[in-house]
Amino acid sequence: MNLCKRMATANSLVVGRSVATVTINKLFESAIQRVCRSFSTKFDLKKEREELHNALPGVIDVLAKHEKFQEIPAADKWMRNVLNGNLIGGKNMRGLTTVMTYKIIEKPENITEETMRLARTLGWCAEILQAYCLVLDDIADGSITRRGMPCWYRREDVGIANAVNDATLIHYSLLQILRANFEKSPSYVELFHNFNETLFYTSLGQYLDIMTGLNNKNYNLFTMEHYNAIVKHKSAYYTFKLPITLGMILANQFNEETHKNVDDISMQLGRLFQMQDDYIDCFGDENMTGKMGTDIQEGKCSWLAVKALQQCKPNQRAVFTVCYGSKEPAHSERIKQLYVQLKIPELYKEEENEYYNKIIQRMQAVSLNAERDLYLQVLDSQYGRKQ
Amino acid sequence: MNLCKRMATANSLVVGRSVATVTINKLFESAIQRVCRSFSTKFDLKKEREELHNALPGVIDVLAKHEKFQEIPAADKWMRNVLNGNLIGGKNMRGLTTVMTYKIIEKPENITEETMRLARTLGWCAEILQAYCLVLDDIADGSITRRGMPCWYRREDVGIANAVNDATLIHYSLLQILRANFEKSPSYVELFHNFNETLFYTSLGQYLDIMTGLNNKNYNLFTMEHYNAIVKHKSAYYTFKLPITLGMILANQFNEETHKNVDDISMQLGRLFQMQDDYIDCFGDENMTGKMGTDIQEGKCSWLAVKALQQCKPNQRAVFTVCYGSKEPAHSERIKQLYVQLKIPELYKEEENEYYNKIIQRMQAVSLNAERDLYLQVLDSQYGRKQ
Repeated sequence: MNLCKRMATANSLVVGRSVATVTINKLFESAIQRVCRSFSTKFDLKKEREELHNALPGVIDVLAKHEKFQEIPAADKWMRNVLNGNLIGGKNMRGLTTVMTYKIIEKPENITEETMRLARTLGWCAEILQAYCLVLDDIADGSITRRGMPCWYRREDVGIANAVNDATLIHYSLLQILRANFEKSPSYVELFHNFNETLFYTSLGQYLDIMTGLNNKNYNLFTMEHYNAIVKHKSAYYTFKLPITLGMILANQFNEETHKNVDDISMQLGRLFQMQDDYIDCFGDENMTGKMGTDIQEGKCSWLAVKALQQCKPNQRAVFTVCYGSKEPAHSERIKQLYVQLKIPELYKEEENEYYNKIIQRMQAVSLNAERDLYLQVLDSQYGRKQ
Repeated sequence: MNLCKRMATANSLVVGRSVATVTINKLFESAIQRVCRSFSTKFDLKKEREELHNALPGVIDVLAKHEKFQEIPAADKWMRNVLNGNLIGGKNMRGLTTVMTYKIIEKPENITEETMRLARTLGWCAEILQAYCLVLDDIADGSITRRGMPCWYRREDVGIANAVNDATLIHYSLLQILRANFEKSPSYVELFHNFNETLFYTSLGQYLDIMTGLNNKNYNLFTMEHYNAIVKHKSAYYTFKLPITLGMILANQFNEETHKNVDDISMQLGRLFQMQDDYIDCFGDENMTGKMGTDIQEGKCSWLAVKALQQCKPNQRAVFTVCYGSKEPAHSERIKQLYVQLKIPELYKEEENEYYNKIIQRMQAVSLNAERDLYLQVLDSQYGRKQ
């Protein structure tokens, strides 16, 4: 279902609860029309993805100018290998969100080939930050595949020793690309602070995630409140807040008002995105997602687990306690059965729909047209991605 | 043997090759006297180590002011745990070198309690950078113990998932401590770049090291030239160049001339330090070093291996090829026997002595008194550390 149809549904749900149905209906209709019009004219996702991909070699080439890579040519070759191996093959939604933000928020007269190059460069920096996280997360989680390929640390020509070191190289490449392109810009310090802070928040989320899972089968921490805290830190900051912030900084539009909106909406988008991710980890098709789900085996505090525990009768909770967080395939199957028994997929669809509508409403409350359109387009471009 | 005695030996070696023996002898004697005098008055290593340790809680406390740690108090507790667990127990030579540099190089009238606090803070940042490297290196190398304790990733309350994530937290803590103390300083960006570059060089060294070891028992790469490149990157930058540079930046004395000296001398010190480290990895006493040597098992391009290959007859090279880089304890023992047979320990002592004298000469060529004294003191404080 595309965003226009979704918004119509959201609309009917909202107005059902309102007295002034007709007026609000009209307001919504006009908003939907306007947004849908602006979508087709403003941001062509497919074309921009192509442009983003075309920009990658130029972004990476900047690194080769570093004297160290001239001193050690083998390292230059390896660095390209590391970056290409970890940047290509994904959906590049973080990079696209950065470019999308810049293009929608910036005054049209300021958009030039050079500013678009910078937007794509920042987009790739957001992607590089993710690559850093994924390389390390796959080691931490003992994951097997990523984007349909063996995880980086499991590749024969890599191994864990290189992978761990490559993470540092990936992080450095981000900082060096930033420096090479923005050192003279007044936003340089603000940009690198944003990357540093985002990485910190993501690690905090990862810490909360690991600690919750390791808590020796004590599932008292598996509450929706705790889940929200994990998701906000582990995913929302780097997936939404960072890319949108980067685009806004480049357009010189990151101020107190936009900051508040970006913060609120990014956290909501992150929540929607992560609950979808959790659902797919269990019920998704590996051939489509390119990775094998491991949340059950690892005892992760996923949306499904939290929801299931809310619904469990004592005997079901006992089954959950025995089978969750176990490497035994039969145990994982038992958890999946329990989820089905507890109608978790149905509950998921319902809550996901409600949450989606709530986000649309929050976006509609943004007063600046371009900014509101931006958020709606980000939602549209990310949503239903693996369904 | 302390530096004064070592310098006398160096002196006699040098003058043996010179015609103007008497004059040079006198010059050297006066230099030795001056340096030794300045040692006792200028930098009290024991006292400064104590002061450095006393400063650590204050350095870490800065982090707790971050709103995220107030939002998630468990993370604040964990961060302290991670930093204390990885910063305490070492010799803190990088931190001490930073403080030493500042104290020796700075004009006495500029040294205040506050500037000393900043020097110690930068010293701890250098230590934190090392902690980041060690946590990841121990995972990469599959090491068992560090500073007489299980490696961080092997601790029961940590595990590999946390350790990998803790590395990111450690790196962030460095950047945040830097920001909290220097954001308003004109040196902030320069300091930030120095940490980034150092981490990059260290990772390049690590890459060269891993790749050389993984080269499928092809030992053609085990040359002294290649060894020097590994050492320079893997060790010299973060052990010597970074701490000295930090102290000089704080004293506003990092300029073209000092940069050249710092670069040259750091690389030489790094080489001396690493060959000593390699020797200790094989022939050191684990009870004294606090870690078990793994270079032979991992097939590392160590000074001993390179030197042995230079001396090997074809049948010995065959033994080396079979036994080096093998996890089999009998194979490691066979390599140690081969080293003894080839008189590697004697060759080490000889070359180490020669290299030491070469460094003293390079240091004596530095024209500024304080700067020259600094290098000599750094050498003195690091040297013979585990013998």
